Amino acid sequence: MDNILNEEETSLQKQNSTSTETTKETTKKFHRRTPRFNGQKTAPALKLSFLGGVGEIGKNMYVLEYGNDMLVIDAGLTFPSDDMPGIDLIIPDTNYLLQNKDRIKGLIVTHGHEDHIGAIPYFLQNINVPIYATRLTCALIENKLKEHKKIKAKLISVKPKTVIKLGVFSIEFVKVTHSIGGAVGFAITTPAGIYFHTGDFKIDYTPIDGEMMDLARLSEINKKGVLLLTADSTNAERPGFSISEAKVGKTIDNIFSQNKQKRIIVATFASNIYRVQQLLNIAEKYGRKIAFSGRSMINVCETASKLGDLKFNKQNVIDISQVNRYADGEICILSTGTQGEARSALTRMAEGDFNKIEIGENDLIIFSSSAIPGNEKAINNVINLLYKKGAEVIYESIAEVHTSGHAYQEELKTLHALLKPKFFIPVHGEYRHLKAHANLAEDMGMPKQNILVPDLGDQITITKNTLQKTGVVPCGALLIDGVGVSEVGSTILRDRMQLSEEGVCVVVITISMITGALTSKPDIISRGFIYKNDETNIIEEAKNVVINTISQTDFKSQDWGLIKSNIRKNLTGYFARQIKCRPMVIPIILETK
Amino acid sequence: MDNILNEEETSLQKQNSTSTETTKETTKKFHRRTPRFNGQKTAPALKLSFLGGVGEIGKNMYVLEYGNDMLVIDAGLTFPSDDMPGIDLIIPDTNYLLQNKDRIKGLIVTHGHEDHIGAIPYFLQNINVPIYATRLTCALIENKLKEHKKIKAKLISVKPKTVIKLGVFSIEFVKVTHSIGGAVGFAITTPAGIYFHTGDFKIDYTPIDGEMMDLARLSEINKKGVLLLTADSTNAERPGFSISEAKVGKTIDNIFSQNKQKRIIVATFASNIYRVQQLLNIAEKYGRKIAFSGRSMINVCETASKLGDLKFNKQNVIDISQVNRYADGEICILSTGTQGEARSALTRMAEGDFNKIEIGENDLIIFSSSAIPGNEKAINNVINLLYKKGAEVIYESIAEVHTSGHAYQEELKTLHALLKPKFFIPVHGEYRHLKAHANLAEDMGMPKQNILVPDLGDQITITKNTLQKTGVVPCGALLIDGVGVSEVGSTILRDRMQLSEEGVCVVVITISMITGALTSKPDIISRGFIYKNDETNIIEEAKNVVINTISQTDFKSQDWGLIKSNIRKNLTGYFARQIKCRPMVIPIILETK
Repeated sequence: MDNILNEEETSLQKQNSTSTETTKETTKKFHRRTPRFNGQKTAPALKLSFLGGVGEIGKNMYVLEYGNDMLVIDAGLTFPSDDMPGIDLIIPDTNYLLQNKDRIKGLIVTHGHEDHIGAIPYFLQNINVPIYATRLTCALIENKLKEHKKIKAKLISVKPKTVIKLGVFSIEFVKVTHSIGGAVGFAITTPAGIYFHTGDFKIDYTPIDGEMMDLARLSEINKKGVLLLTADSTNAERPGFSISEAKVGKTIDNIFSQNKQKRIIVATFASNIYRVQQLLNIAEKYGRKIAFSGRSMINVCETASKLGDLKFNKQNVIDISQVNRYADGEICILSTGTQGEARSALTRMAEGDFNKIEIGENDLIIFSSSAIPGNEKAINNVINLLYKKGAEVIYESIAEVHTSGHAYQEELKTLHALLKPKFFIPVHGEYRHLKAHANLAEDMGMPKQNILVPDLGDQITITKNTLQKTGVVPCGALLIDGVGVSEVGSTILRDRMQLSEEGVCVVVITISMITGALTSKPDIISRGFIYKNDETNIIEEAKNVVINTISQTDFKSQDWGLIKSNIRKNLTGYFARQIKCRPMVIPIILETK
Repeated sequence: MDNILNEEETSLQKQNSTSTETTKETTKKFHRRTPRFNGQKTAPALKLSFLGGVGEIGKNMYVLEYGNDMLVIDAGLTFPSDDMPGIDLIIPDTNYLLQNKDRIKGLIVTHGHEDHIGAIPYFLQNINVPIYATRLTCALIENKLKEHKKIKAKLISVKPKTVIKLGVFSIEFVKVTHSIGGAVGFAITTPAGIYFHTGDFKIDYTPIDGEMMDLARLSEINKKGVLLLTADSTNAERPGFSISEAKVGKTIDNIFSQNKQKRIIVATFASNIYRVQQLLNIAEKYGRKIAFSGRSMINVCETASKLGDLKFNKQNVIDISQVNRYADGEICILSTGTQGEARSALTRMAEGDFNKIEIGENDLIIFSSSAIPGNEKAINNVINLLYKKGAEVIYESIAEVHTSGHAYQEELKTLHALLKPKFFIPVHGEYRHLKAHANLAEDMGMPKQNILVPDLGDQITITKNTLQKTGVVPCGALLIDGVGVSEVGSTILRDRMQLSEEGVCVVVITISMITGALTSKPDIISRGFIYKNDETNIIEEAKNVVINTISQTDFKSQDWGLIKSNIRKNLTGYFARQIKCRPMVIPIILETK
């Protein structure tokens, strides 16, 4: 496979000119050849299936197939919502891939964010195919795999503008801008035509690395005719353009220039190396030493600096423990903890629980980040604590110290105008975002029947003249709890929700096997639902409820299940009436002679 | 007390001219009189204490006192955060008021939102003082008290511009604009000087009821000299002006005019009668019948219409069950459910679980509301479901169909400029909002030492020349669960959090009183933490852990506490190692002969 990495873009043109001219014939040929495909009877049509990342933000995973060949795009995770207590992360159900394991030619990855690479360690446990990504993305995947020691991966680094060939697919890596380095989209030449996938992207005319999203290449691809476009919809509801990364740098530079005497702490996403690069430059410009704080900040900066994706004077970097040797105006700390995470360095500083740094009135903290939905309260809490310590705090709603990595409406229009695809499927977003993006395409003149808003698990078949949903593939969410890929079932989640909202009540009774009578008073243990003061009375009365239940139940049947269900019913009713609570009742029956 | 309600504003002037001239003497006199105050030795100074509503959004409750006289401002609730499973609502700890019960002259209420009146039923259980509020606020309190049947309240309706006298305090009700009718601020003349409290407010130059916030009155009060201002800080971080309510009406009118054939459903906050009034007018203008949906919408509209605060042609209103008799373009449904509440009519419509209304492609749903932090996901879910049914959905981020009820920075500046207070305490907001409001006051030229950012429980003493924190009063949060004012302790919450994240493991062992040995194998019941497939093995091994623990424990002491704590320790360790889970372990020991 490796020799193909040296192919230049000419191969895409060659591949493409063949495919667009001969689609119909190819299809027929494939039809005839179907029986040869290892017993698979897949019709040789271009199919795209969504295992994650549509109708939701996160766990992106798309499957492209033509005939016997399958290609997986991204393998991301998502984080649990409030109604999933104790769950650490969520990955896509990959049963469809397992069923078609031998057909998968590879995994191609757009960029190194968790919602695009986070499921790779779990994916590789069952499906060990080569992974193709840009250099920085490969390095981030490698870092991730270090935590899962037993897994070996074949990682192949691909440069933008390069074409790789996997089965019938030729995939050109096209540079895009996003809030992480090394992000690409894919121009995939298939026997049915060209399919373009943007990945997460924005259009930034003043990017930090000097390399703009490859707009010129988009128009070249357009000239060959794009059959299908799938594109990022995250910000499809937002009018206008997103702020340029360079503008964010200017705002921060301005803040530094106005606060020369203060110690400055900037919290940002470690993987946003463009932001980190700007911060390093600004700190250097104002003669400040830089201290990295937080494990992921240190890891990512090391990795990116080794690859040359991050450039700075190493003599300018000091260890966080050295900070107090310098005057406040000589220091800039780059920290993680943008989301108010409980154990992050910044949160601990705010709580006064970080012995290397004590926050005071001469500190200025910049949150160069935004809140991931659900984290608002935790972030608020940290900001409030910092203010209380007398520090000044600057965040997105006060100044333009952050920008989104996803295209706004006018940027999306630029994309559509440059590529002019025949068919369009909005991806990466909740249904409302996909719908907004679909509306935008329609407003730009695309016929309604050429646009399809997908649902999770949809399999879409694309021919030269049609775009339609032709099936549903197995899909869903695997909830990861503790370690390993154990599936946490819905029963456990339901139990946890009941336990957390209503508490638990264990009833232990001992019954004589001979008489069927209780040999002692029932024992009741409650957790999480009875108030201390009322406890004695309520527990005593509950015991009477159990005693009455037993005496009214026909013992001869020795139907413990029935006795248990009666106890459950009567106790639940009693608690509901008395204290408006419905704890989980767990009856335990012990038999004595 | 009632005759005072007829006093005109002259009484404020009289009261005021006396007080401002004689503050010093009065203070002295009060000092001498201290022993007479029922044994209370409170120094006769003006004190303001915060039982809620500072450093947080919600459960507003402030206490003003001078000498022996105490006045309570608002009695609100707040809703629980994610780390309080099963909690219904939170009210301020009123121990400080209970300790000073006999000194309280009354409760004055700014407006009828839950965060200002929600704690009244609980407050009244122990402190039955008269409540003063405007007509609509009184009606809303009355509605609320109906749910708590045993509580009788003395509710006194007060018109804006009226002055009431409670002890040494003369309180003028000053009309303000907010997202509910009948909102007022208070100009309170005290022996120390005039104290102005805004309550929740915004400045709207084109209000729906034609009555602007009484700005002219503010400058009159300014002329007498305002000693202290406390003002709403909710939007103190937002630059500019909030959108006028009339502008929202125009946007919605425009949407109606462009969708004459569609059925229109508008979700809004029932208590925002200005919004409801506009919606009723617009529906009538476009010849649509109105159907109310949702209990609180029906209740509030009935109440407000009886009081004359809401005006509409009753013949235009139909029951929700009649909707299907009309063409889509003849119908406008006003609904609750703006927050994606699980059982609300709108959520049920979105889920296809509301038999009177089936949502389809000819429906247009307007969310004339904003998300209360924490509800974003639930609202998103409803919007996504509505889109999936083919309906069109319009919400705040798409068009100006909602506005905030709280003043933005330029409005706050207008307030400060009109009142020119000597001292300022920002209230109603988290610490960051209070700090932003304090900065705004400083930017307007107020000396730093004249501004105080308060914390929950702070008692501030204000004299003619000083503003300082002089103490801390008992304060905190009472968590309401089920019915009644039972305090849910932190142990219960901690238990619930552990139960929800880690599950529970009940261990039942029977020990012979004679030999100290187990008489049978231990019984283990787990909930919420063991995956079905692994269950048998793990449970069996866990039983062995218990058996080993017992055999290693010295039985002679018969120290059940020690045995239980050893079982807890060893099992927790076992589960942590095996499945990275720390369930709550509940050992139960039964003794047999």
